[in-house]
Amino acid sequence: MRYGYIGSMGTRPGRRDEVVSLLLSRLDGLHAAGCEQYLVSVSEDDENTIWVTEVWRSKEDHDASLELPEVKAAIGRAMPMLNGEFTRQELEVVGGLGL
Amino acid sequence: MRYGYIGSMGTRPGRRDEVVSLLLSRLDGLHAAGCEQYLVSVSEDDENTIWVTEVWRSKEDHDASLELPEVKAAIGRAMPMLNGEFTRQELEVVGGLGL
Repeated sequence: MRYGYIGSMGTRPGRRDEVVSLLLSRLDGLHAAGCEQYLVSVSEDDENTIWVTEVWRSKEDHDASLELPEVKAAIGRAMPMLNGEFTRQELEVVGGLGL
Repeated sequence: MRYGYIGSMGTRPGRRDEVVSLLLSRLDGLHAAGCEQYLVSVSEDDENTIWVTEVWRSKEDHDASLELPEVKAAIGRAMPMLNGEFTRQELEVVGGLGL
């Protein structure tokens, strides 16, 4: 079954859009690593939070991607702009439209 | 900007898989109504919750879909199997992979 992930991250005041750009700049590598879907979203009712929803071929592919040099570099660049607040929900994607 | 929605619903004991099947049975109508993505997921650490992640052309399309006869009928069939616990997060999808 496909592996799904819903996560949110808090950003320091005024840094949200920079982090969004960073997250959207490394999509090619994700696809090659087994990521079928990676969406970056914001909400008008919370200007310091970013939501990321992901679908992967497998949990193993997702976990392995965290060791990729470009992913580690992106995380390193993002961390100083984050405020330390995270949520995460791991999922098994049963099915749906648009996969 | 595309409209995103992350929602969870609690199900009565033993009814989760029936609700999942119901949610996955009406996908054609959703696509015609402007839904680009509609994923139904579960988690092994919570056997009474279903997560639905959606991407729509617009919030207006999403809101209008709730008035469709087949959607109202599906909601009516699902309600007796739900336990009344819901979460929801409305989003603006900035971009990503797999749209």
